[in-house]
Amino acid sequence: MQKIVDDIAAQMASKIEKGTVASYIPQLACVNPDQFSISVALADGSLFNAGCAQTLFSIQSISKVFTLTLALGKLGERVWNRVGREPSGDPFNSIVQLEHEQGKPRNPFVNAGAIAIADAIIQGHQPKETLAEILQFMRFLADDESIAINEKVAHSEELTGERNASLAHFMASFGHFQNPVDAVLGTYFHHCSIAMNTVQLATAGLFLANSGVNPATGYRVVSSKRARRINSLMLMCGHYDGSGEFAYRVGLPGKSGVGGGILAIAPGNASIAVWSPGLDTIGNSKLGTEALELLTQKTGWSVFGK
Amino acid sequence: MQKIVDDIAAQMASKIEKGTVASYIPQLACVNPDQFSISVALADGSLFNAGCAQTLFSIQSISKVFTLTLALGKLGERVWNRVGREPSGDPFNSIVQLEHEQGKPRNPFVNAGAIAIADAIIQGHQPKETLAEILQFMRFLADDESIAINEKVAHSEELTGERNASLAHFMASFGHFQNPVDAVLGTYFHHCSIAMNTVQLATAGLFLANSGVNPATGYRVVSSKRARRINSLMLMCGHYDGSGEFAYRVGLPGKSGVGGGILAIAPGNASIAVWSPGLDTIGNSKLGTEALELLTQKTGWSVFGK
Amino acid sequence: MQKIVDDIAAQMASKIEKGTVASYIPQLACVNPDQFSISVALADGSLFNAGCAQTLFSIQSISKVFTLTLALGKLGERVWNRVGREPSGDPFNSIVQLEHEQGKPRNPFVNAGAIAIADAIIQGHQPKETLAEILQFMRFLADDESIAINEKVAHSEELTGERNASLAHFMASFGHFQNPVDAVLGTYFHHCSIAMNTVQLATAGLFLANSGVNPATGYRVVSSKRARRINSLMLMCGHYDGSGEFAYRVGLPGKSGVGGGILAIAPGNASIAVWSPGLDTIGNSKLGTEALELLTQKTGWSVFGK
Amino acid sequence: MQKIVDDIAAQMASKIEKGTVASYIPQLACVNPDQFSISVALADGSLFNAGCAQTLFSIQSISKVFTLTLALGKLGERVWNRVGREPSGDPFNSIVQLEHEQGKPRNPFVNAGAIAIADAIIQGHQPKETLAEILQFMRFLADDESIAINEKVAHSEELTGERNASLAHFMASFGHFQNPVDAVLGTYFHHCSIAMNTVQLATAGLFLANSGVNPATGYRVVSSKRARRINSLMLMCGHYDGSGEFAYRVGLPGKSGVGGGILAIAPGNASIAVWSPGLDTIGNSKLGTEALELLTQKTGWSVFGK
Repeated sequence: MQKIVDDIAAQMASKIEKGTVASYIPQLACVNPDQFSISVALADGSLFNAGCAQTLFSIQSISKVFTLTLALGKLGERVWNRVGREPSGDPFNSIVQLEHEQGKPRNPFVNAGAIAIADAIIQGHQPKETLAEILQFMRFLADDESIAINEKVAHSEELTGERNASLAHFMASFGHFQNPVDAVLGTYFHHCSIAMNTVQLATAGLFLANSGVNPATGYRVVSSKRARRINSLMLMCGHYDGSGEFAYRVGLPGKSGVGGGILAIAPGNASIAVWSPGLDTIGNSKLGTEALELLTQKTGWSVFGK
Repeated sequence: MQKIVDDIAAQMASKIEKGTVASYIPQLACVNPDQFSISVALADGSLFNAGCAQTLFSIQSISKVFTLTLALGKLGERVWNRVGREPSGDPFNSIVQLEHEQGKPRNPFVNAGAIAIADAIIQGHQPKETLAEILQFMRFLADDESIAINEKVAHSEELTGERNASLAHFMASFGHFQNPVDAVLGTYFHHCSIAMNTVQLATAGLFLANSGVNPATGYRVVSSKRARRINSLMLMCGHYDGSGEFAYRVGLPGKSGVGGGILAIAPGNASIAVWSPGLDTIGNSKLGTEALELLTQKTGWSVFGK
Repeated sequence: MQKIVDDIAAQMASKIEKGTVASYIPQLACVNPDQFSISVALADGSLFNAGCAQTLFSIQSISKVFTLTLALGKLGERVWNRVGREPSGDPFNSIVQLEHEQGKPRNPFVNAGAIAIADAIIQGHQPKETLAEILQFMRFLADDESIAINEKVAHSEELTGERNASLAHFMASFGHFQNPVDAVLGTYFHHCSIAMNTVQLATAGLFLANSGVNPATGYRVVSSKRARRINSLMLMCGHYDGSGEFAYRVGLPGKSGVGGGILAIAPGNASIAVWSPGLDTIGNSKLGTEALELLTQKTGWSVFGK
Repeated sequence: MQKIVDDIAAQMASKIEKGTVASYIPQLACVNPDQFSISVALADGSLFNAGCAQTLFSIQSISKVFTLTLALGKLGERVWNRVGREPSGDPFNSIVQLEHEQGKPRNPFVNAGAIAIADAIIQGHQPKETLAEILQFMRFLADDESIAINEKVAHSEELTGERNASLAHFMASFGHFQNPVDAVLGTYFHHCSIAMNTVQLATAGLFLANSGVNPATGYRVVSSKRARRINSLMLMCGHYDGSGEFAYRVGLPGKSGVGGGILAIAPGNASIAVWSPGLDTIGNSKLGTEALELLTQKTGWSVFGK
């Protein structure tokens, strides 16, 4: 496995087309695009890294996997009163579907859906308390107390987050929100601004590869059924309107973020985190996707067969 | 395995809510809704059946899996110039997406996509020749020379197929068609009218569960890579705007038809065909979906983990 | 008035930007774009012409004003069960609105609406009989027995009319049609292919400028109330998604055709026909619109005030 | 004329179906639905009233006519960089069109368009200054210094204005706004909360009926060309997706508000204000529309002919 990840890192280092770093959040735009890292956490708890696997990056939308997990823990199946579980066929920030479906987002991974999930987990607490809870959950999953929010990124997001504000007010206009829009948006912007490296991220995702139990810590995070269901949502909706393409090429449940990270799950085998800041036109990490495609070719981990 | 399928069939027989038989095609509307069958073809070639597994039904949209396979054999990756590979987020017969994307269907399993595939495989031949080729392919896959088209159903579809005619003319208006619209529609309506039973269908799908090789006959149908890719499309798009729900509940690549059949693939394990004519509100077999949900619970075959 | 139309024709002759001749119907594409004509028929029956006012052109969508008038005569207010009377905000051939509103076109002047009107006026007759009736009506209104259909244009439209076929089949899929789709489309394509010159067209529209009575012949064509209502539809919907622009610049009810003609009505004052084959990006005659803008400036005929 | 308005008021008093008072703004919901008033201001400055013509009501969207007039005075034709001038075919608060057209509203009378106009007229001033300017303009037009904002309604709108906040943030996400979203929304909510009676409103609209000059005061408000153009926008877009219906039935440029008021312009003849708080399903005053329909029948003022 170490040879596989080293080979992949070497191949990625030689790529000339690395995609384009997200520019709409100033704090993300200044990241060096020549970085790449990969971490593979196996179901037995062993870990294999290549590239700058200690470098922190903004996990952005990957955080939505973990806030969904938290929400399912708090509300159970009532989460699905707030968001659907179908792919939207639209870009991550589209509002058209919201109007056609009375303010209920298609799934928890489009921006509107994750904002609705943020509202669901606040439950009358202060945003600070909710953020503390989310951080604590991430530290628990990654078994690493150092994980923190990058406040500069969070602030940058708030200043440029007009589209997300629009989505939130739109949902609020249907009476769907239990908390003030600003509190919900603050929570959302901050959990997207959590900084992690691929080691931490791969570890944090292990419970999804291992029937709900984190083999590093031995703790059961969710039931095996819930782990499968979260994986199904990642596969169907984890890459916005590029989800079909990711399934076609990589064949694993995965969730991308505009910071350039991707968390992918090979059920029964491994949790994989890759990071490279350059994005393709849809907004998913270009080299990250290519690296995962190589990995499934070399390992036979595709869920769609050998 | 025989006990599992017997148990499932028994449970399904006791269900009171069986869904609603498709009414828009008169020949389908008169089918008795109290029927159920299941056939599980294992990767070793063994076969387990329960219910009326010899009863023929109209495979309808399930045929799209096989015409896609044929088209990939003829055109290779050029197929993707004609159709995309993303879920549409829309009902099976929506035309809105077509207008927004200049007549290119989102994927080969929405009606417009399958009609475009029909155009692609005709390649200047007569519709009769193309239909003969499709039938021959089905007989080869199912290892059964008796498979035939139900002409009454085909005729009934042509009479009531205004929406599909609209989709076809719409695509033709962008200059995307190589054959006359009527020839394409005739081909499409007829391949949807192929009659099969669950034994034949499960056998025909085995190559997708077995890395491209039909273990019953030993023939390689497609490469293992292509088998994985077809499976990914089935998972992402095989149940229209209920695909997310099917992935969430069943966790297998699958393709449904309004005749009440579903073909599901458990990669490395089995090809499964179920049939029950009553449909849910989205148009997928109600008991068929429930039976598959039970099956993956009992077998642990979900691609999303144990 | 003669000086006004002469001035306008002179100004139009000096224009360098004449727009683009419609290319999607081959028979229209070969028209010389340097032609211009204007005819103003006053409410007292006098007529003023400039340019090639005897040259025949394809009236295309302008025919929709007259088929609507016929349909109102046959069905009365029941026409509005078939089509709405709101502007669509969409291009002339959009199908998106049709899907969102269950196959009922927004108004009688978008293509789908005019096709629905064609179905409504056939009423079980043969298309030939219906076309004969439409032609007779045009001859009666224009007081000119020579008006005829250009069969080459009609044939050309049928060959290239895939989008209109799609619209028609789409509406038929909702069960809205009383006649076979092909008969309806044939009727529609043929009435769009009527050839007229601006003298004939201005005369034919006079009843709308004169409270429903043709002053040239003395015949009442419709009630004054119906004349007003047809005028309101022309203003609101007569130039597709350029209707607001036409109202803003010209200030008259008008109906354009892709052949380059426009019929405009100055209630109480005049019926005006202009023709110049070059179109703007929306599909309305470029010089025709400019000529009408000049005319209302010089005459003070805008319905929106002096 | 006095007899005409008395007759109309008498007929309206006898109506049983009065529509439904707008409920989404609590301060509007408590208005007594049994009220009706009409004021007709003739181009010669004479004024005819019936019903409770001194009762103040919330002019709501009617204010958009006057903020557009102000914006045209400040920015001239550059206003059209911010908003289009086509009917939208959508409800007043739709966001779908905004996404499809990159945040540029279709016209100045849909909510998004009026919010964009509010941004355009602030021009770096404080919202309070802008509101003072708008109020001063209304007092000048109506020749009545008592006109004021109903602060309770404004506050009620701000509390319930999530949809408008969504529209504003959506436009801001395209970088279209020059002022903070909250300042723009505050301005918008307040100018919609101006309280007037039909006497004041009919007087304020007179310049539009009289080629840009207010005959009561003799002041030229806008050029005759601009008056015509504003009238054209009112006809095309003044009643949202009921604009075609209003043109068909009434035949005058008009602008409605959810407070139950309508301002209608009979160019060259009169400015008419009606008020009745009950709305039809689209959100336009039910009795107000019926009253105007009667008025044009009795007076022959329809712009579409006698």
